[in-house]
Amino acid sequence: MLLKRWLVGDPLKTAQAAHERLSKTLALAIFSSNAISSVAYATEEILLVLILAGSAAVSWSIPVSIAILILTLILTISYRQIIYEYPAGGGAYIVARSNLGELPALIAAGALMIDYILTVAVSVAAGIAALTSAVPVLFPHREALGLTAILFIIVMNLRGVRESGKFFAVPTYFAIGALGLMVILGTIQSLIGPGAVPVAPPITAGQDGLDGVTLFLVLRAFAAGCSAVTGMEVISNGVQAFREPESKNAATTMIWMSTILAALFMGISWMAYHYGILAKADETVVSQLARLTFGSGAIYYAVQISTMLLLVLAANSAFAGFPHLSSILARDGYMPHQMASFGDRLVFSNGIFILGFFACLLLVIFHGDTHALIPLYAIGVFVSFTLSQAGMVKRWLVKRGLHWRKKLVVNGIGAITTGVATVIIATTKFMQGAWIVFLLVAILIMMFRGIRSHYKAVAEQVSLTRDTRPPRPRRNLVIMPIGGVNRSVVRAVDYARSRGGEIRAILVDVDKEETALVEIKWAQWGCGVPLVVLPSPYRSILGSILDYIEDLQQKDPDCWITVVIPEILPARWWQNILHNQRALLLKGALLFKDRVVLTDVPYHLTR
Amino acid sequence: MLLKRWLVGDPLKTAQAAHERLSKTLALAIFSSNAISSVAYATEEILLVLILAGSAAVSWSIPVSIAILILTLILTISYRQIIYEYPAGGGAYIVARSNLGELPALIAAGALMIDYILTVAVSVAAGIAALTSAVPVLFPHREALGLTAILFIIVMNLRGVRESGKFFAVPTYFAIGALGLMVILGTIQSLIGPGAVPVAPPITAGQDGLDGVTLFLVLRAFAAGCSAVTGMEVISNGVQAFREPESKNAATTMIWMSTILAALFMGISWMAYHYGILAKADETVVSQLARLTFGSGAIYYAVQISTMLLLVLAANSAFAGFPHLSSILARDGYMPHQMASFGDRLVFSNGIFILGFFACLLLVIFHGDTHALIPLYAIGVFVSFTLSQAGMVKRWLVKRGLHWRKKLVVNGIGAITTGVATVIIATTKFMQGAWIVFLLVAILIMMFRGIRSHYKAVAEQVSLTRDTRPPRPRRNLVIMPIGGVNRSVVRAVDYARSRGGEIRAILVDVDKEETALVEIKWAQWGCGVPLVVLPSPYRSILGSILDYIEDLQQKDPDCWITVVIPEILPARWWQNILHNQRALLLKGALLFKDRVVLTDVPYHLTR
Repeated sequence: MLLKRWLVGDPLKTAQAAHERLSKTLALAIFSSNAISSVAYATEEILLVLILAGSAAVSWSIPVSIAILILTLILTISYRQIIYEYPAGGGAYIVARSNLGELPALIAAGALMIDYILTVAVSVAAGIAALTSAVPVLFPHREALGLTAILFIIVMNLRGVRESGKFFAVPTYFAIGALGLMVILGTIQSLIGPGAVPVAPPITAGQDGLDGVTLFLVLRAFAAGCSAVTGMEVISNGVQAFREPESKNAATTMIWMSTILAALFMGISWMAYHYGILAKADETVVSQLARLTFGSGAIYYAVQISTMLLLVLAANSAFAGFPHLSSILARDGYMPHQMASFGDRLVFSNGIFILGFFACLLLVIFHGDTHALIPLYAIGVFVSFTLSQAGMVKRWLVKRGLHWRKKLVVNGIGAITTGVATVIIATTKFMQGAWIVFLLVAILIMMFRGIRSHYKAVAEQVSLTRDTRPPRPRRNLVIMPIGGVNRSVVRAVDYARSRGGEIRAILVDVDKEETALVEIKWAQWGCGVPLVVLPSPYRSILGSILDYIEDLQQKDPDCWITVVIPEILPARWWQNILHNQRALLLKGALLFKDRVVLTDVPYHLTR
Repeated sequence: MLLKRWLVGDPLKTAQAAHERLSKTLALAIFSSNAISSVAYATEEILLVLILAGSAAVSWSIPVSIAILILTLILTISYRQIIYEYPAGGGAYIVARSNLGELPALIAAGALMIDYILTVAVSVAAGIAALTSAVPVLFPHREALGLTAILFIIVMNLRGVRESGKFFAVPTYFAIGALGLMVILGTIQSLIGPGAVPVAPPITAGQDGLDGVTLFLVLRAFAAGCSAVTGMEVISNGVQAFREPESKNAATTMIWMSTILAALFMGISWMAYHYGILAKADETVVSQLARLTFGSGAIYYAVQISTMLLLVLAANSAFAGFPHLSSILARDGYMPHQMASFGDRLVFSNGIFILGFFACLLLVIFHGDTHALIPLYAIGVFVSFTLSQAGMVKRWLVKRGLHWRKKLVVNGIGAITTGVATVIIATTKFMQGAWIVFLLVAILIMMFRGIRSHYKAVAEQVSLTRDTRPPRPRRNLVIMPIGGVNRSVVRAVDYARSRGGEIRAILVDVDKEETALVEIKWAQWGCGVPLVVLPSPYRSILGSILDYIEDLQQKDPDCWITVVIPEILPARWWQNILHNQRALLLKGALLFKDRVVLTDVPYHLTR
C-alpha cells in the first residue's frame, strides 16, 4: 500500500474532479502527441512500399504525401463539426450509437479498442527505433526497452491526468521544436543551399528483378502513409477534459495539431525525396535526415531523444482514451461494471491495466518491430473515422438545423474520403495482417453482446416486481463443524451464541478415541451447545457434513441453515497453506446449495 | 467430478483398507522395479566415465561392477535387519528419528524426498531413452514423451495401490524375463559360442589426448555405478503394505529383488565388456546388447519395450514412497497437515501431485536427458542409506537384546560401506550437480523446521488452559451494505431477519439521485430494517463502509459486528468476473479486523 501511494499519489475528492481540466497548452501535449508522432514513421512506411518497385519509384512519395495532406485537411474540418456537436465527447462509438444504431456503434468500439492497443505498441516500438538509431548498441534490447517504456507510462497514468499532462508537456513541445527546426533548416537547405547531398545509391530506372510502379503499389504506399493521420480523432473523444468553453478550446487545439502534423509530415517527405533517403533496417529515415541536417553531434542526439520521447508519450494518449471508452461501454452494459468505476486518482485504473497488458503482449509477439505492427494499424482508426463521419451525415439528414446543408457536405466529403481510404487500406493490407483486426473486432462484438445480454438476464432475475411481496422471516438453524476444541472453536461458539437461535456443533467421527476426547472437552467448553457426532464410513469428513445438511434441508424446507466455520487466520499470508484446507473444500461444496449461508469466524494469530 | 470418478474409480471404505495389502508377487513388482530397472543405465554410466581415459580403460568396468555387487550384498543383509526391527515400515527418516535425533532424521527425510523426485525423472528419462534407441524417429520428442509417461503414472496412482499393482505386475515380470533371457543367452554365447563379435573400435593403448586411468577416475566410475543400487531401500519403507507376516514376506521379497538385480547387472556389465560395447548418444548400451543377442527383429523390440515399461514403472515406486514419507512427516508436524489426509482412494493424493509436479519440472529443466540427471541422483539415496545403518548401529548399542553383537557387526559394516560410498559420490560428483542436492536438502530442513515451529506456535495460541473461562455472550450488530434494492438484497434482508438481533442496512451516497431512489424502494422492501446513508467525500464506497465499522467498534468494544453481504452467484463460473468485485474488495479489507464476521448470502442465478 505504501508503494502504491508513493507510485500513484494520494486519493482525490470528487470536488477536485472539476479542477482536473486541461488548458489548451497541456491538452495539445496530451492529445496531439499521438497524431504528430506519426511523422516519425509515416514517410518511412511509404518509402518501404515504393522501394519494392525500384529506386525510381521513390519519387511517387511526393504525390502520395500530398494525398495524405489533403486527407488531413478533410479530417480536420470534419472533426471540428463533431467537436461542436458533441461537447460531452464525441468518439466514434458515441456518434455511431446515437445516429446509426447498435451494430455500427459496436464495430466502432471494437475497432477503436484494438487501435488504442496498437497505438501503444506501434508508438513505443517506433520510439525505441529512434533510440536504437542513435545508439546502435541498444538494438538487440529493443523488446526489453519497449516493455520498460510501457510500464513507465502505466505508472505515470495511475498518478492521474493533470500530473501526467505536466510531465508530458515538456518533452512533447521539445520534440515538436526539434523536429520543426530540422524540417525548416533541411527544407531551406534543399531549396537555396548548395544542392542535394546524395546519400542513397544513384537512382537508376528499370532495375532488374523489381516490379514496375503499379496502381496497386501506389495505393499500398498510400495505405501505409495513412498511419500519419492516426490519432487525429483523439481530441474529439476528450472534449470534456478541456477547460470551458470546451468545444471552442478543443476545436482550436485541433487546428494547431493538424497544422503541426501537416507541416512536419510534408517537410520530412520532401527532405527524404530531395536527399534520396531510403529506409534502412537499423536506422530510421528521420534519424538519417537529422544526421544529414545537423551532423552526428549533440543536436542530432537531441532530435533522436526527443523523437523517442514524443513517440513513447504518444502511447500515453491511448492511455487517456482506452479507459474512457471502456467506461462508456461499461455504463452501457457492454463491458464489466467494474470498468466504469473511478480509481483512487480519478482515472479508470482497470482500463489502464488492461491496455498496458495487451500492448506489452503485442510488443512481445512482434518482437518490438514497428514495420511488423504497421499492417495491423490504421485499419481500425479508419473504420471508426468512416463510422463517425457517416453518423454525422445521418445526423444532419435527420436533425437538420442551422447551416445543415453546408455541414452535410463537409461530413459527406469526410465520409466518402475516409470510406475510400478504409477500402484501400483493407484491400492492400488484408493479407499482411489486417484480417487479424477484422477477426478481433468480430470477437469483441460478440463479447460486448454477450456481456450485455448477461447483465440483462441478471437484471430480469433480480428485479423486484409489484407482485414480489416482502418475504416472511423463516427459521434459522446454526450448525458449526468442528475437528477439535480450541480457542478458535470457543470463539466461534461465542459468536454463534451472541446471535441466538438454535445452534448445533458437528463432529465427524473418524477416530473413536479422538471423538471421545473431543466430547469430554466439549462438555467443559461448549457452553451448553449440543454436539452431534456424525458417523463416517468413508472417512470423508466433507461428505458426512454435506449429507447431514442435505438431511436437514429435506426435513425442513422452510429453514435457513447457517454454517459457522471456525477459521485460524495466520499472521502471515503464506502460512495459509498450512491451515484451513478443509474449510476451503467445505465452502466450495456448500457455495451452490440454496438456503445455506456460510459464516467464517476468524481467529487471528499473532505469530 | 464425473471425469475424476472415471479416472480414479469409486471411493473406498475404511474397512477396505486392510484388504489393500500386497502379496509377495505383487509387492515384488511394485517395490523392486525401482532397484532392478537401474540395470538399464548403471553399466552405461560406468562406461561413460571410464571412456574418458580411453578405450583401454573400459576393462576397469569389471572390477567396478564387482565392487557394486559386494555393495548390493551388504545392503541386502543390512536392510533385512531393518525390516525385522521395524515391521511398521523403517524408512531412513523413522530409523534416524528413533535412534539419532531430529537433525539426522530431517537430513534423511530431505535427502529421500529429493531422491524420490529424481527417481521419477531419471527412470522416465531412461525409459524414454530405451524407446528412442529402438525407434530413433522419436528421439526429438523425448521430453514430451517423458511428460506423458509421468502424467500416466499419476493417474494410475490416483486409482489406488492394488489396482496399480496388478496393472504394473505384468510388464515388470515381462521385463525381468526379457532382460534375463538376454543376459543368459549373451553370457552363454560369450563363454562357449564362436567368440566375441567386436562392435567397438579395437582397443588401443595410450591414445593421444586422453587421460590415463587414475584412482579418481575409477572412484568416479564407482560413484556413477552406484546408481545401480538406488531403490534397494524401498521395501524396508513399505513393510506395512505386505500381507501378514509382514516382516518375513518383506525380507523374502528383498532377497528375490537383490538376486535379480545382481544377476542382471553383472550379466550386462560382463556382456558389455566382452563384446566391447561403448556408450552412444542416441542408443543405450542395453539396446546395443539386445541387438547383438537377438538381431533387430521382434525379440529385440520386445526387450526394448519391456525395458522402457520397467523403467517407467520404476518411477511408480517413488509414487508409493513419497506420499507415504510426506504423510509421516506431516503427522510429526514437519509438513502441512493436509499431506497426512487420505484421499478418496486410500492413497495420499496431495503427495502424488507434488511429486509428479517436481518430477515434470526436473524433466523439462534437464531436457529429459538421463546422463544430465545422474550426477544429482544416488547422493540422496546414499546419505539416507548411511543414516539408516548408523541409526541401527546406535540402536544395537543402546537396546542390545538377542544376538546384538552379530547384528551390530552387520549394520556396522553397512554403515561404514555406505558412508565411504557417500563420501566417494559426494567428492566425485560435487561439481557436476551433487551440490544442488546438498543445497536443496538444507532448504528442505529449514522448511521442515519452519513448518513445525509454526504449528507449535499455533497450538500454543489456540490451546485452552484451565484459566481460559468460557466467554460471556456479547452483543451482535448486523450491518448490510447495499448498492441498490433487488431480489438478492431482499433475500439477504430475509436471512438477516431470520436470525434476529439489531440489523442496519448501509448505503454509501455516491450519487444524490440514485440515493433518493434507493431510499424510496427501501421503504417498500426493507421490512422495517433501518437504512443508514453514509456520506462519501472520496467516492470510495469501500472507505466509507470501513470508516463506519471502525466507528461502531470504537463506540462499543464488546460488540460483534456481522457484515451480511448480498451476493449474486452467476450460473456459470466465468460470469463471476462480471459480478461481486466490490464485495471481494470489502471482504479482503474486513478479513483482518477483529470481532468482524462476514456472512455472504448468495442469490443463485439460473442463466
